[in-house]
Amino acid sequence: MSVEAAQADRLVRGVGERSVPALARAISLVENGRDGYEEILSALHPSVGNAHRIGITGPPGSGKSTLIERVVRIYRDRDITVAVVAVDPTSPFTGGALLGDRIRMESLTLDPGVYIRSMASRGATGGLATTTREVCDVLDAFGFERVIIETVGVGQSELAIAGSADTTALVLVPESGDGVQVLKAGVMEIADLYVINKSDRPGADRLVQEVEVMLGIRRGNAYRHVGPHHGGLAGRTARREPDDGAGTAGWAPPVLKTAAAKGEGTEAAIDAVDRHRAFLESTGLLQERRRARLAQHTREVVNRALSTLVWERWDGEAVLAAGLDDVVSGRLSPYRLARNIVADLQEERGHGG
Amino acid sequence: MSVEAAQADRLVRGVGERSVPALARAISLVENGRDGYEEILSALHPSVGNAHRIGITGPPGSGKSTLIERVVRIYRDRDITVAVVAVDPTSPFTGGALLGDRIRMESLTLDPGVYIRSMASRGATGGLATTTREVCDVLDAFGFERVIIETVGVGQSELAIAGSADTTALVLVPESGDGVQVLKAGVMEIADLYVINKSDRPGADRLVQEVEVMLGIRRGNAYRHVGPHHGGLAGRTARREPDDGAGTAGWAPPVLKTAAAKGEGTEAAIDAVDRHRAFLESTGLLQERRRARLAQHTREVVNRALSTLVWERWDGEAVLAAGLDDVVSGRLSPYRLARNIVADLQEERGHGG
Repeated sequence: MSVEAAQADRLVRGVGERSVPALARAISLVENGRDGYEEILSALHPSVGNAHRIGITGPPGSGKSTLIERVVRIYRDRDITVAVVAVDPTSPFTGGALLGDRIRMESLTLDPGVYIRSMASRGATGGLATTTREVCDVLDAFGFERVIIETVGVGQSELAIAGSADTTALVLVPESGDGVQVLKAGVMEIADLYVINKSDRPGADRLVQEVEVMLGIRRGNAYRHVGPHHGGLAGRTARREPDDGAGTAGWAPPVLKTAAAKGEGTEAAIDAVDRHRAFLESTGLLQERRRARLAQHTREVVNRALSTLVWERWDGEAVLAAGLDDVVSGRLSPYRLARNIVADLQEERGHGG
Repeated sequence: MSVEAAQADRLVRGVGERSVPALARAISLVENGRDGYEEILSALHPSVGNAHRIGITGPPGSGKSTLIERVVRIYRDRDITVAVVAVDPTSPFTGGALLGDRIRMESLTLDPGVYIRSMASRGATGGLATTTREVCDVLDAFGFERVIIETVGVGQSELAIAGSADTTALVLVPESGDGVQVLKAGVMEIADLYVINKSDRPGADRLVQEVEVMLGIRRGNAYRHVGPHHGGLAGRTARREPDDGAGTAGWAPPVLKTAAAKGEGTEAAIDAVDRHRAFLESTGLLQERRRARLAQHTREVVNRALSTLVWERWDGEAVLAAGLDDVVSGRLSPYRLARNIVADLQEERGHGG
């Protein structure tokens, strides 16, 4: 057994035995794409799939981190273990904020039922979304009951990350007209619930109304009532129409008000997350979403493997270097050079295989 | 000649003859990855490389679009042609803002020396960054002297897009403490100049100072002066230290104040962009950056070709579908399934080739 394989084996056992150092080491290997990281993930795969993954996204300054901190504390009061993966570079979890915030966050990590990890957003082997999903897999396999993924809801890849969770919450604040702009640009569609944070500030009710209008929950001041449907959904009074076809039929995303810094509304937000989870389970959508996520993940792993093959194992870089002068001078296009590289690779394989 | 090849041929000739309908059609084919789009790009490649590409990025609400509108008008006064590629979903150019803004922007498009295009940020064949670069290539080949790329400076991919321009400007506004958070998170490094927009509002000077401190231009109130260096840089008084090694040695990113809505400071911003261009040219960095960009682009084209090969031409999807039940149940890991798909593909090729 190679050194890497022996180490991978040890780490997999360590994660299975809930060793925190093994967990930290396994995540680092995965995050940095070190030798053997796919073997580790492969060995952990049968243990993955129990955590409820919650994506929390929103513009910078919307108070996501404070909200998450509160949510974590409430989960802990309920004796539920939680991991937080911070992909937001402006998050206090990743070091992007005031020292006071950061210290408050870090105090959480003294609790063994909490694990906080920030993703280095550069240098991920196969794209940030793929690597983040793999880090969540490790945390899931370790046994965390909730995995919260914090991203900043403006960028493409960050949205994709939040959108691949089981339940996605979009956090907005009254003063951010920007947030509403982002909404209009289609960010909305990914969210299963909307949280208007800092709702003790002026404009909160107006924002709630704007969001509800955008969701089609209300038009002007006219509510449309529909009955409760699916177990656990009693009491909700409206549904989005027309259905967006994205597998959310029957779920009307609630718009909630919180003031996380004061602890207001956070319990209700957690209840909504739990209701969404119950909804996904009772309708079979949870299984469906996970299936789609696994298919997508497999595609990304294949693409990454092919890329590694051509650029690291075979001589793609050498062929590229040999042709680059001609590309720069305009004699050769990047497309012809690319075709040569792919052809060489196939040729090589044809002989080798 | 196939229908696609004949059409591609016609479009390439049309772009060469500066036909705007051909340009629009070529961009659409490229953006949507339609049959023959790589042939079009390949044929246009010898004509690419004359435009100065300017990335303009910043948080939503920083007034990027107003600034760009002013910049475009000034360029037109100087008889320079300009294309704008808006990747920012919150931009008025892409329809994410107030109607009044949008109409003002659209009035620009009556001028044949201006071309405005917003990127649909979903469904790009090979990643948003690659496709955006290709759209810029078409505009460059068409003959636009400046190609401005507007992105929202928070997301990963959006930063990568702005960072692949020849000159990148980061726009901030006094009221956005968020902007500074983003800065701290490392966004800073990508910019060649910093624009404090809406600088008629309170806090502008403080923000200028904060940015300068972060850039190492000043520490507290102590300036470090260094002499002017490299042609065209006279009058600038400070340089970043230590050098970040990213090929910007000798260029001290200026921090400029604008109030674009009032037309203040925009001429100076353009002058700084031109100075940066002159700097890149005189030091050979322009050629170096373009070479690196072409190498990276070729890598992305190869990766895209391999992905197309496995998922569209061969039976990758069928193998995936056949194994997915086992992946969902945990009997098979996505990594083993991926390995099977890659192996099957190689096997196939070994026989076929």
